[in-house]
Amino acid sequence: MSEEDIWVTFQPYGKRVRVKRGTNILEAARLAGVFIPSLCGGRGLCGKCRVKVSNESSLAKPDPSEAALLGADAGPFRLACRAVPRASISVEIPPESMASAPQILVNGTDWEITIDPAVSKFHLRLEPPTLEDPAADFERVRGALSKLGVEITEYGLQTLRDGPQVLRDSGWEVTATVWDSRRLIRIQPGDTSSSLYGVAVDVGTTTVVCQLVDLTTGKTVQSESILNPQIPYGEDIVTRLSLSRKSPSDEQTLHKVLVEGISSMIQNCCRRQGIDPEDVLEVSVVGNTVMHHMAMGLPSSFLGESPFSPVMKRGIDLTARDVGLALHPDTNIHALPTLAGYVGADACAVILASRIYEEKETSMAVDIGTNGEIVLGSERGLTTCSCAAGPALEGAHITFGMRASEGAIEKVRIDGERVVYETIGGGPPVGICGSGVIDAVAQMLLAGIIGREGRLRPHPRVRTRNGVKEFVLVEGKHTGMGRDIVVTQKDIREVQLAKAAIYTGASSLMDHTGNRPEDIQTVYVAGAFGNYIDFRSAKTIGLIPDIPIERLRFRGHAAMTGAKLSLFSRSPRQLAEHVAQKVRYVELTCTPGFNQRYMDATYLPHRDPSRFPSVRLPD
Amino acid sequence: MSEEDIWVTFQPYGKRVRVKRGTNILEAARLAGVFIPSLCGGRGLCGKCRVKVSNESSLAKPDPSEAALLGADAGPFRLACRAVPRASISVEIPPESMASAPQILVNGTDWEITIDPAVSKFHLRLEPPTLEDPAADFERVRGALSKLGVEITEYGLQTLRDGPQVLRDSGWEVTATVWDSRRLIRIQPGDTSSSLYGVAVDVGTTTVVCQLVDLTTGKTVQSESILNPQIPYGEDIVTRLSLSRKSPSDEQTLHKVLVEGISSMIQNCCRRQGIDPEDVLEVSVVGNTVMHHMAMGLPSSFLGESPFSPVMKRGIDLTARDVGLALHPDTNIHALPTLAGYVGADACAVILASRIYEEKETSMAVDIGTNGEIVLGSERGLTTCSCAAGPALEGAHITFGMRASEGAIEKVRIDGERVVYETIGGGPPVGICGSGVIDAVAQMLLAGIIGREGRLRPHPRVRTRNGVKEFVLVEGKHTGMGRDIVVTQKDIREVQLAKAAIYTGASSLMDHTGNRPEDIQTVYVAGAFGNYIDFRSAKTIGLIPDIPIERLRFRGHAAMTGAKLSLFSRSPRQLAEHVAQKVRYVELTCTPGFNQRYMDATYLPHRDPSRFPSVRLPD
Repeated sequence: MSEEDIWVTFQPYGKRVRVKRGTNILEAARLAGVFIPSLCGGRGLCGKCRVKVSNESSLAKPDPSEAALLGADAGPFRLACRAVPRASISVEIPPESMASAPQILVNGTDWEITIDPAVSKFHLRLEPPTLEDPAADFERVRGALSKLGVEITEYGLQTLRDGPQVLRDSGWEVTATVWDSRRLIRIQPGDTSSSLYGVAVDVGTTTVVCQLVDLTTGKTVQSESILNPQIPYGEDIVTRLSLSRKSPSDEQTLHKVLVEGISSMIQNCCRRQGIDPEDVLEVSVVGNTVMHHMAMGLPSSFLGESPFSPVMKRGIDLTARDVGLALHPDTNIHALPTLAGYVGADACAVILASRIYEEKETSMAVDIGTNGEIVLGSERGLTTCSCAAGPALEGAHITFGMRASEGAIEKVRIDGERVVYETIGGGPPVGICGSGVIDAVAQMLLAGIIGREGRLRPHPRVRTRNGVKEFVLVEGKHTGMGRDIVVTQKDIREVQLAKAAIYTGASSLMDHTGNRPEDIQTVYVAGAFGNYIDFRSAKTIGLIPDIPIERLRFRGHAAMTGAKLSLFSRSPRQLAEHVAQKVRYVELTCTPGFNQRYMDATYLPHRDPSRFPSVRLPD
Repeated sequence: MSEEDIWVTFQPYGKRVRVKRGTNILEAARLAGVFIPSLCGGRGLCGKCRVKVSNESSLAKPDPSEAALLGADAGPFRLACRAVPRASISVEIPPESMASAPQILVNGTDWEITIDPAVSKFHLRLEPPTLEDPAADFERVRGALSKLGVEITEYGLQTLRDGPQVLRDSGWEVTATVWDSRRLIRIQPGDTSSSLYGVAVDVGTTTVVCQLVDLTTGKTVQSESILNPQIPYGEDIVTRLSLSRKSPSDEQTLHKVLVEGISSMIQNCCRRQGIDPEDVLEVSVVGNTVMHHMAMGLPSSFLGESPFSPVMKRGIDLTARDVGLALHPDTNIHALPTLAGYVGADACAVILASRIYEEKETSMAVDIGTNGEIVLGSERGLTTCSCAAGPALEGAHITFGMRASEGAIEKVRIDGERVVYETIGGGPPVGICGSGVIDAVAQMLLAGIIGREGRLRPHPRVRTRNGVKEFVLVEGKHTGMGRDIVVTQKDIREVQLAKAAIYTGASSLMDHTGNRPEDIQTVYVAGAFGNYIDFRSAKTIGLIPDIPIERLRFRGHAAMTGAKLSLFSRSPRQLAEHVAQKVRYVELTCTPGFNQRYMDATYLPHRDPSRFPSVRLPD
């Protein structure tokens, strides 16, 4: 703990947070994930953020404006946004503040969060202008919001242009949407304040996922995923970066196809939900650094040149107009902070969702994807690395691979010549998703159908077609499309390469930070590869280090969860900024012996079986 | 003085200003036109705004962050941006702060101003990224600026997109331009910090004037004027507003032709100055409310419907991209506040330039233009009205009328049958500008060539051509184009209508506020109608009330001066906001008897000669 740091404890939650001296109580609360209401965005204007402090001498006296808002008998009360502790302090949130916003438990996380999005709506009934009172339209709106404690200092361009007509058409009864307590981004006729939607987007190299979220309840109401529309321009990041470096117009094309894809996903979600895309009030974007830059329209070409430095590390806010998304032009698009050239906003979101930054003991988060990331550490600090796994674990580059949707085989058991499987939705299988692929390879290994080096051996279900060896997983008569579903020798090889990349990342990061498997208290496993992953299978093939099952936690699509957290509340957004500044990045491919490590890890589970004592193979 | 107000006095200048309680010393200094250096824009980060306070007990104690910046032995020193006086106070600016920025005396005003524009440049030498230090490009720029006390929180979109290439091409030695101490709006290779240009634009109904200003010296280096490119769509505001109300595409056309005209003027100025239009760092726009809205691309149609309320009254900042100007897209376009539906940012600029808001005695500013404005008042308050004068006084709608440029007759004396004149530049005449027209009509009146009702009488220089009576001002053998320059009966009628509108505005506003001519201490006369105006002629025709010559002051193109003031320094900009909130607007056309007043004022100088005792006519 640096000498500049102090502790702020929030009661009755008992949550505490370490902050730099000079941080005010409202900022500290956001970092602690504690909700304190504020309408003015912490500018000392609305007076809503009253808190009770344990020891007034730890704080400077209120300045005149704070004193005025507190009133005569303030007693131990202070405004959280104005009060800057000089020493560690305990702060009590008054009951009326605690009750004022709904709490939600975020699916698949330990987050219990108070809904406090960056966007809020205000229903206004305005006096129409008259010759006696011809005040300007936006002075009228600003004045009404100011009475509610919200001080507008910026105006969305489209809102400036459309607002006057809306005000008149609606008979001066409108709903104003305000972003970050300061920018007016929408004026809609009537009272639309009960509808509050946001969109979270995870831009993966292979898969792009978009979820429509109801910001009043925290519920995900629609979801859609597509293959990244950049794939025709290059399957992997390196190919796309070369194209981006070729010419600005190629760079522009990659940006354009991506935002068009995202726009149409959002439009589909909105159509199914029966809302207008204009009703999407904010979008939160995560993705690896290259996808993040390409989605936001930042120059990406330098990410393809050593030393791979990103354009921007901090979170970015641009408008839909700036980004090119087909939404209301003034809608804010928030991209979470990136961590390094190859560790992006998705890793930052995974850190948020897993809360690894507040673990007392060393923990690890493994985000499995075409470009995977590993984060290792605790509240004392985090280290991260990236690994180019390729798309096999997302079901791509696999003969019968598919995304985790209806009809995908997600679980496999092999019992002699019998194959037992489960599909998503329970209907006849049409392909295999990531978790099914991992299961299938693990089961073939355990059944002796493949060896440690991954080669298919003679077996009643193994055959050769067009010179390629393959394992018949499901015969055509049982499948949804009447054709056999097989796992080929090449498919197995793809899985080996992918899992070797992830394992090498995780084990190298452990070595780099001086941790052995027994030092890791918890491993959070995340990825967009399926709804489910069998930890035993993952360990059997050597995808993750051999850590006892009870210490493994599945976090599902944690990057998406992190993106949604930052839509639900400003608190995780501020926290992400804070965490991103503190994560150290290690470039593993430059470390000596990396290639040998990688080759050794392509064995199932590893060339050195002593690394996987819990995995017992037949021979 | 409201109970909430206090006085802040600045030494050694002896300037004092009345401010609302809660205003900090830096804000008060800006309102007083006193320069205090600040790099962080008043956010308590840079520590540059140290001032010495007379009475510490009038201020709250410094908070921890201010205390840290002040250091241990701060003594009577405080940070101006943090210190909020509780009572009237005297503040001393330390000598080192006074010396740090150049002072200029603004032409044609009483303004002595410290150059402190909203844009500033910083020459940066950055460490290039390495594998060991692959920090993000903009973190690098932000970090370097932060060390200089400038905290960037916003990034121009184009700068985000172009910056990374510029950084690399320049070998990481660049000049960063920062707007309002917070937004990064340009990264240029090398050291361009000695070049700092801004553009001021006055968008008149008839004439659009643009001046290129060197912001390091305060000098106007190039100037250009054009007829408003909207004129083909309607000579007067009402016609253009009808078109704007017809359809959004017509409204868009009016906006487009105007910004194209302004763009090409700026480009011409830049070309003549030998700079790139990308080097224009900020643009300041004034104009009547309709021109202001149409230039900025705000909806204008409601200005054509009762109660004529504007979209926005406060100053607006949009980017060149938003406005559609052909400059660097991130350039800020600042439009000064408007005062009412028909009293615009030009009137606000005239108030700024004339400093009528700080007069102890009642004064009046008369801005003569196609849409003229009158402001009347003192430091105790201002009242304003508008008058639709038409373009005659700008030389339009006059047979040989022209703008105030080379070859325009600007002075006229009639001595019997002889006409003596002066032209701009001294060459042969090619037409008459506004001041020449006023002189000509006044001289014809004094010579008995026209009567009080404005009709031409028999005279050796009066003739009839094509059924129209006209006065031969200059015979063809003396003119630049070989044709006679004449003043027709219709021209005289146009001048009568124009001057009647201005006089009715001025006299009605005086009546409305209970002031007689003898109560008016000073009349500031302004307009884009020429370089010069003869006050005796103006009174002779009854353009301005009969106030002694020694109380009249010519302020030239004061709207342009106000626009330039707000480029030179943030102080007048803040002041404009402050003043605009306090000006009361009177809609004179709705007052009883207005039409009769106007008809009476069409006489020369007036139907009631007792209103102009100083004007003695021949009969």
